[in-house]
Amino acid sequence: MSETAQRRGRGRRPAGEVREGVLRAAAGLLLSEGIKAVTFDRVATAAGSSKMTLYKWWPSAGALAAEAYFAHSEHQLEFPDTGDIRADLTAQLCAFVRLITHEGTGPVLAGLIGVAQTDPELSAAFSEHYSAPRRALAVAAFEKARDRGQLRADIDLGILVDQLWGACYNRLLIPDAPLTEDYAVALVANALDGAAP
Amino acid sequence: MSETAQRRGRGRRPAGEVREGVLRAAAGLLLSEGIKAVTFDRVATAAGSSKMTLYKWWPSAGALAAEAYFAHSEHQLEFPDTGDIRADLTAQLCAFVRLITHEGTGPVLAGLIGVAQTDPELSAAFSEHYSAPRRALAVAAFEKARDRGQLRADIDLGILVDQLWGACYNRLLIPDAPLTEDYAVALVANALDGAAP
Repeated sequence: MSETAQRRGRGRRPAGEVREGVLRAAAGLLLSEGIKAVTFDRVATAAGSSKMTLYKWWPSAGALAAEAYFAHSEHQLEFPDTGDIRADLTAQLCAFVRLITHEGTGPVLAGLIGVAQTDPELSAAFSEHYSAPRRALAVAAFEKARDRGQLRADIDLGILVDQLWGACYNRLLIPDAPLTEDYAVALVANALDGAAP
Repeated sequence: MSETAQRRGRGRRPAGEVREGVLRAAAGLLLSEGIKAVTFDRVATAAGSSKMTLYKWWPSAGALAAEAYFAHSEHQLEFPDTGDIRADLTAQLCAFVRLITHEGTGPVLAGLIGVAQTDPELSAAFSEHYSAPRRALAVAAFEKARDRGQLRADIDLGILVDQLWGACYNRLLIPDAPLTEDYAVALVANALDGAAP
């Protein structure tokens, strides 16, 4: 149904509702067919919205795909806090590895990061809606752990994000070695204890 | 000049020479215009070879791009071995950060990894010609360091590759935090010493 027909037939839907519907439609295409299926044309058809509406809200189909992925995976952002950083990190990182090795999620996330390399709008949306908030949550958990005396005061906490989740992304994107929960456990142990004797 | 004309005019060039010329032409396009410029059409024209020859040797233009990048950057594979793993890693990782933050190399490497997410032939060629040999060299250096008593015997040496170079790739591909030589130095310190008190 065209936007005009909607307006005449049953009044204009509230913007928030339209936006949610578009994000849901984009997430559906992304998860079932991959990043290349997320075009303004196909999302507009699937959502019953006009392409004009989509153009108004998103600078590119890639940016829409990134926001849709985030809206879909928002609940996975939670970071357990039991007061024991070693246990919390192990739990969080094992859950992350299960997520990104799942056949329905791994290729989608890899595809988003892949296309982001040549699509600056997707890259910006991915950072704004997904990776930067995740990084901030992790650093906040590290700060609390440091205040509890579980991390050294002289550590740049940002690098721990790269040595844990970044190390997992490395095996997702450049699959030369296996990405397993055992690997996640070993990453946490080494990030905390170090490889030197 | 067509292949037929070459054969008549001055004899067929040796295969090795043709192959080198094609790789050089592909690297030139890759470094000057990016991954999307590396098509069989443009490489064949630039190398003065036939497209048939290219189809015979490479399963996809992406696979050709990956091999060209490797041939171009082969000398950067060297791993210093002074007998001090901390110093060698710091030198190697700082050189790696300089390489991947260089405006001529960083976007090319990011573009190759990006396209690899949706091009299995590029992914396989990248692994075979670039990332897997680099990983093997690093693990070999770690094994020597372990034999010298500079790394613990119970460490899975493969994860150190991800916590050092993989951490750098993470900031290249998902640029939420700065990728600098200071970062490289901090990565080495934490991978060896750990973040726990």
